[in-house]
Amino acid sequence: MSVSASKKFENFSEWFDDVIFRARIVDNRFPVKGFSVYLENGAFMLDIIRKLLEDELEKTGHKKMYFPLVTSEELFRKEAEHIKGFSKEVFVIDQGSGEQRLIIRPTSETIMYPMFKLWIRSHADLPFKVHQSVNVYRRETKATRALYRVREIPWNEAHTVHETAAEAEKQVREAMQIYETVLRKLCIGYIILKRPDFDKFAGAVYSIAFDAWNPDGKVNQVATIHNLGRNFAKAYEIEFEKRDGSRGTPYQTCYGFGFSRVMAAIIAQHGDDRGLVLPPIIAPTQVVIIPIPFKGQEKQILDYASKVKDMLASRWRTVLDDRDDITPGEK
Amino acid sequence: MSVSASKKFENFSEWFDDVIFRARIVDNRFPVKGFSVYLENGAFMLDIIRKLLEDELEKTGHKKMYFPLVTSEELFRKEAEHIKGFSKEVFVIDQGSGEQRLIIRPTSETIMYPMFKLWIRSHADLPFKVHQSVNVYRRETKATRALYRVREIPWNEAHTVHETAAEAEKQVREAMQIYETVLRKLCIGYIILKRPDFDKFAGAVYSIAFDAWNPDGKVNQVATIHNLGRNFAKAYEIEFEKRDGSRGTPYQTCYGFGFSRVMAAIIAQHGDDRGLVLPPIIAPTQVVIIPIPFKGQEKQILDYASKVKDMLASRWRTVLDDRDDITPGEK
Repeated sequence: MSVSASKKFENFSEWFDDVIFRARIVDNRFPVKGFSVYLENGAFMLDIIRKLLEDELEKTGHKKMYFPLVTSEELFRKEAEHIKGFSKEVFVIDQGSGEQRLIIRPTSETIMYPMFKLWIRSHADLPFKVHQSVNVYRRETKATRALYRVREIPWNEAHTVHETAAEAEKQVREAMQIYETVLRKLCIGYIILKRPDFDKFAGAVYSIAFDAWNPDGKVNQVATIHNLGRNFAKAYEIEFEKRDGSRGTPYQTCYGFGFSRVMAAIIAQHGDDRGLVLPPIIAPTQVVIIPIPFKGQEKQILDYASKVKDMLASRWRTVLDDRDDITPGEK
Repeated sequence: MSVSASKKFENFSEWFDDVIFRARIVDNRFPVKGFSVYLENGAFMLDIIRKLLEDELEKTGHKKMYFPLVTSEELFRKEAEHIKGFSKEVFVIDQGSGEQRLIIRPTSETIMYPMFKLWIRSHADLPFKVHQSVNVYRRETKATRALYRVREIPWNEAHTVHETAAEAEKQVREAMQIYETVLRKLCIGYIILKRPDFDKFAGAVYSIAFDAWNPDGKVNQVATIHNLGRNFAKAYEIEFEKRDGSRGTPYQTCYGFGFSRVMAAIIAQHGDDRGLVLPPIIAPTQVVIIPIPFKGQEKQILDYASKVKDMLASRWRTVLDDRDDITPGEK
């Protein structure tokens, strides 16, 4: 879709920035650090990735809900490890006198779990599985980078609650299966690694990450899955009546899938020195018809090309390139 | 879907809050003023409304993009009337020393138009039509109210740029047509009114609003359309090369469609004293099959009901209610 001036395997960063701008995926000139504009092809790709993932989540019984952007400081501070991990990188809204300070979600545990406390009463409410596709915000202090390292992060987060540790463990496997299905549909190469303790999610028992490779050898973490044990359930006082009538604290998992990083992985792995290359499933345009006009038969040929377009358009995203100011070769 | 304890025409507010909670549309117990949780049916309805509108916008050549949540104070302050109108109700992120304060979008003129300045060069770039479905945030000081008067507002905003005043005027008509199409599909009664000057959008030449009625006689403004003239284009220095080669300042329009208020209008206009009633186009469940079992033939009847479900499910959102612990009558 665009010829890049840089070489992918010589100067990956430059190549990448060039490709996403020329292919109308992202415009990175917005004058606030870490925030950029998703142009029409970027917005289209985001929507496709979201749809693929949401379909899998809904097939496996995750309910879609939408939770608020903000939490209160009081709610944010309930889980000790979680605060330590995130407090330096949250954006804070100061409302001045009279009203409380608000924390913008870096992830939504502290927003969802106070509601889970209200909703979950008994084993009959479990397993409970919910998801949302939203932006989360992290005040990245390192150099930011379009799609890879941004302060506004489009993602899907799913959160589940279970009766037993074994069921939570099983849920981690289901989440792995879901993410694998979507990453394979999107033709991304990745490896799955359990994170060492120092690198696990703040508040989790353990974390598993999906790492995609970059042409420069660096790793691109596109998704993570966390077994939360009962850490958050205890902090947020989520309890349920067990089958034997006694009160219990449930087990939780949560997992996040980064849409912009997945998009970056597709571009990085499939693009070449001529520019953007996309797997058909996510290509905004899947078929381009270029009529080759012959003198005196221009109209018949264009009409036929137009018929072919109509035939294909119900199944493929098809464009008829009927510009008459450039040659078929230039197209 | 739920039997309400209150009467719609006697105590509308109470009836409404009761219906949206029982029908699993919104849970309003989130402990931050003006922010609530869209439960599974609310999230479903939001998605349907968004899809209906986006389809119309794309048919009429609006490109979908996603712009950042925040703007800088400098960008926010460029259009004088706009600041006056919005400065008291924006949420502000204070990043402390070293980094600038950020304004969370109450609407996105001050975020999009600096980019339009970069993108629009000549008459060949016009008309330019873009849209996004996002949440905007307004620090409502009056009492908040789920769906109607909230601080987190899910909406679609479209912004257009034109060569001439006449084309901008024509665009206002197209926007009216689009909103009418969607509101009619959703079976909402409304009137279209030009707002008096004191009530127009901050910075606009004039504003048109779509008002839906409430059972209590109050008005519910579900959408607005603004002819911006050249006010913002001048403030944000958007210029283009005209057909005669000279430089010109383009004309703009923008229009917003409030998803949660549209949802409120559907519920308010169609519900009754037994609870929620939805037009089929937006009903999460369109068909419920209730098998009537006869002794000795339970299995055949259930199998047949299941076949009927499979037949209908490709066209309608169908549920087979096969619970065996309650009677068909109770269902």
